[in-house]
Amino acid sequence: MDNRYDHTRYCEKDRFAQYVGIELLEISAQRAKAKMTIREHHLNGVNIVHGGALFTLADLVFGALGYVHDQSSVSINANISYFKAINTGSLIAEGKLVALTPKLGSYTVQITDEEGDTVAVFQGLGYRRRQSRVLE
Amino acid sequence: MDNRYDHTRYCEKDRFAQYVGIELLEISAQRAKAKMTIREHHLNGVNIVHGGALFTLADLVFGALGYVHDQSSVSINANISYFKAINTGSLIAEGKLVALTPKLGSYTVQITDEEGDTVAVFQGLGYRRRQSRVLE
Amino acid sequence: MDNRYDHTRYCEKDRFAQYVGIELLEISAQRAKAKMTIREHHLNGVNIVHGGALFTLADLVFGALGYVHDQSSVSINANISYFKAINTGSLIAEGKLVALTPKLGSYTVQITDEEGDTVAVFQGLGYRRRQSRVLE
Amino acid sequence: MDNRYDHTRYCEKDRFAQYVGIELLEISAQRAKAKMTIREHHLNGVNIVHGGALFTLADLVFGALGYVHDQSSVSINANISYFKAINTGSLIAEGKLVALTPKLGSYTVQITDEEGDTVAVFQGLGYRRRQSRVLE
Repeated sequence: MDNRYDHTRYCEKDRFAQYVGIELLEISAQRAKAKMTIREHHLNGVNIVHGGALFTLADLVFGALGYVHDQSSVSINANISYFKAINTGSLIAEGKLVALTPKLGSYTVQITDEEGDTVAVFQGLGYRRRQSRVLE
Repeated sequence: MDNRYDHTRYCEKDRFAQYVGIELLEISAQRAKAKMTIREHHLNGVNIVHGGALFTLADLVFGALGYVHDQSSVSINANISYFKAINTGSLIAEGKLVALTPKLGSYTVQITDEEGDTVAVFQGLGYRRRQSRVLE
Repeated sequence: MDNRYDHTRYCEKDRFAQYVGIELLEISAQRAKAKMTIREHHLNGVNIVHGGALFTLADLVFGALGYVHDQSSVSINANISYFKAINTGSLIAEGKLVALTPKLGSYTVQITDEEGDTVAVFQGLGYRRRQSRVLE
Repeated sequence: MDNRYDHTRYCEKDRFAQYVGIELLEISAQRAKAKMTIREHHLNGVNIVHGGALFTLADLVFGALGYVHDQSSVSINANISYFKAINTGSLIAEGKLVALTPKLGSYTVQITDEEGDTVAVFQGLGYRRRQSRVLE
């Protein structure tokens, strides 16, 4: 890590994550964690947390990890599977690096509820535009 | 279509889609369309529309189509690929059914910008819990 | 189309597709089609066509389309959903371009059986290394 | 583990995996490993291992894990990202359970080459038809 970038500021500047109500708890080169306390505005038409809210929670973790590894990283693909419908309490998303090459990075993020049950699993693929930095 | 369900009401009740600022424009058994006018709150830390906002726009179309086909349908997997970074104007998501079996439904949703360029492609997989209704 | 490349030769040189027993039937810039007649060696441990055989059938169509659009194209991600278990007859995979940007191409391939039922839906993402050719 | 099922026999009976040339090395409820030594017949038209061969290697590990957890499990979706083109040596696929609910199981499989580099990452989603067995 060095001061050429500031992921905390990056997350503070993420207006959509703030608008949705997501808080980044921890971040390092190997692991990141975020939290979303379920509110009325996260629910869909059948009163469970919207897939888009779960995706956004996981995507913030993916984006923060990608940014730590390479400021030039852009998301090109993401895949999410849902395991449990939920409508109350708070959710934690934890992500980690799976593979990093000069051009691509793969990350997995798992969302769990307060009972420790898996709510969703997210797999993100980032493209490193400058392809220059190695993992610190 | 019949009055056993009301997808318009379903979408009106979708608080997350409303909170994010998504409007369902059209829906039928074969096709659905939604719109999102880009606002400041949709942007991420590098000033482009957040992947979670794009996903939510596509997911609303997917969810509405799934609901039309089967009220018992739940999303189990979604895959999104991003093609163009964007930060202004409005986005249209159009979705259609790809395959429907007694247990599963597959849908594809394409997001385009005002220039007609593809911004993202979304593939959603729904599980039909009651497995009883045929496509109308 | 021009004679700078020869996709037919590309497919003839694809030893894995030949070994598995896949035949490319048609190809153009917009659409491609391949066939696999189910044989004993395609079956898995529970006597249905192996997911890997279905994937390979779809992947050949995806690869041929990507090659037509850009000889420098490499596959970076693929997503497949399975809808029907099958163990006899022949399968047809038809693919088409969904989106093409200077850097990325997205393709969808649908596999159907002799009854016209959807067996699998495949979504492929290609990266264009030279990023130079436009769609003809 | 008990003798209600026999995953080794399941893998021996997998004719496609045998035809492609994949060997299951290890399996338990938590982890499985398979090997493929690259042969001429695994190559595609540009002389690298075919995506379908990599997918089949990962899919065998996914299928074996799913079968250990639940004999009634069927694959419904898989997602693969490619990181390194390769044409010689042997490949190892290692898979593990990510999440298991009464209805769904999620697995991740990583393929590495002899240098320890990641060649591909695979995410598989299984549906448990009988939904009855717990993880042993």
